Amino acid sequence: MSLIHFEDVTVGDTHRFGRYEVTREEIIEYARQFDPQPFHLDEEAARRSMFGGLVASGWHTGAMLIRMVCDHAIPGSATTGALGFDDLKWLKPVRPGDILSVETVVREKTESRSRPDIGVVKIESRVHDQRGETKMTLFSLVLYRRRAASPPA
Amino acid sequence: MSLIHFEDVTVGDTHRFGRYEVTREEIIEYARQFDPQPFHLDEEAARRSMFGGLVASGWHTGAMLIRMVCDHAIPGSATTGALGFDDLKWLKPVRPGDILSVETVVREKTESRSRPDIGVVKIESRVHDQRGETKMTLFSLVLYRRRAASPPA
Repeated sequence: MSLIHFEDVTVGDTHRFGRYEVTREEIIEYARQFDPQPFHLDEEAARRSMFGGLVASGWHTGAMLIRMVCDHAIPGSATTGALGFDDLKWLKPVRPGDILSVETVVREKTESRSRPDIGVVKIESRVHDQRGETKMTLFSLVLYRRRAASPPA
Repeated sequence: MSLIHFEDVTVGDTHRFGRYEVTREEIIEYARQFDPQPFHLDEEAARRSMFGGLVASGWHTGAMLIRMVCDHAIPGSATTGALGFDDLKWLKPVRPGDILSVETVVREKTESRSRPDIGVVKIESRVHDQRGETKMTLFSLVLYRRRAASPPA
């Protein structure tokens, strides 16, 4: 199968993929290791918080997103990592029992000024739940290899 | 100890804190669970990649940041989570043996239009290594409770 290179990407391209079941156990395990705030860690404390119940760390939601991207989007693409991202919003809490999926839309393409072999693609990612509510959005700056720069066969 | 509320925060406030030792084992463990790209997972594949060796997932670096924030910054502050963040840049790869720390600078303060009990503080976070190189930067939008909104004693 031919990989999707920078030249193959078109602004407006939209993809939907992934299925991530959020569990109480994984929320607490992640929080213990990285984000031990009471509303991520402890059911009783979470009930008394502004969230009214246990919610996943926002960084954990980001980790779930990159897992779905690794499983479904990266395998067919000639990507070589990302520069960073912009305008991440945690719109709704992620709770045990939520089933997440991803929608991506290509928003911009820019050739690299310093590296002729790559281009930067700005991709909007939206994480939805099973009810279609949007939990998190962000814009990633993803590096794609260019076909034009590949050595001739 | 009195918690730092919205009114106590001043634009320009700077704090340095944290010490996070990055290990090969933790890089691979995180990558297996959330970001199984070869350069995060496998020493040999990583050597052949653009990174020239094993590097942490960028989302893992974010997790290390929030862990240092939880251990050192949140305990003294009347914060209630974050709305999201802007302009995250992964500037240098994070590798096994790196020892990370954090520098935060308050950049903006905004009263919430919808909620009189909170304010939004824009905080620049910079993750440095033991040589003073900056690995990652981002701007978080953090919610602080307001003293003014607390019920009179």
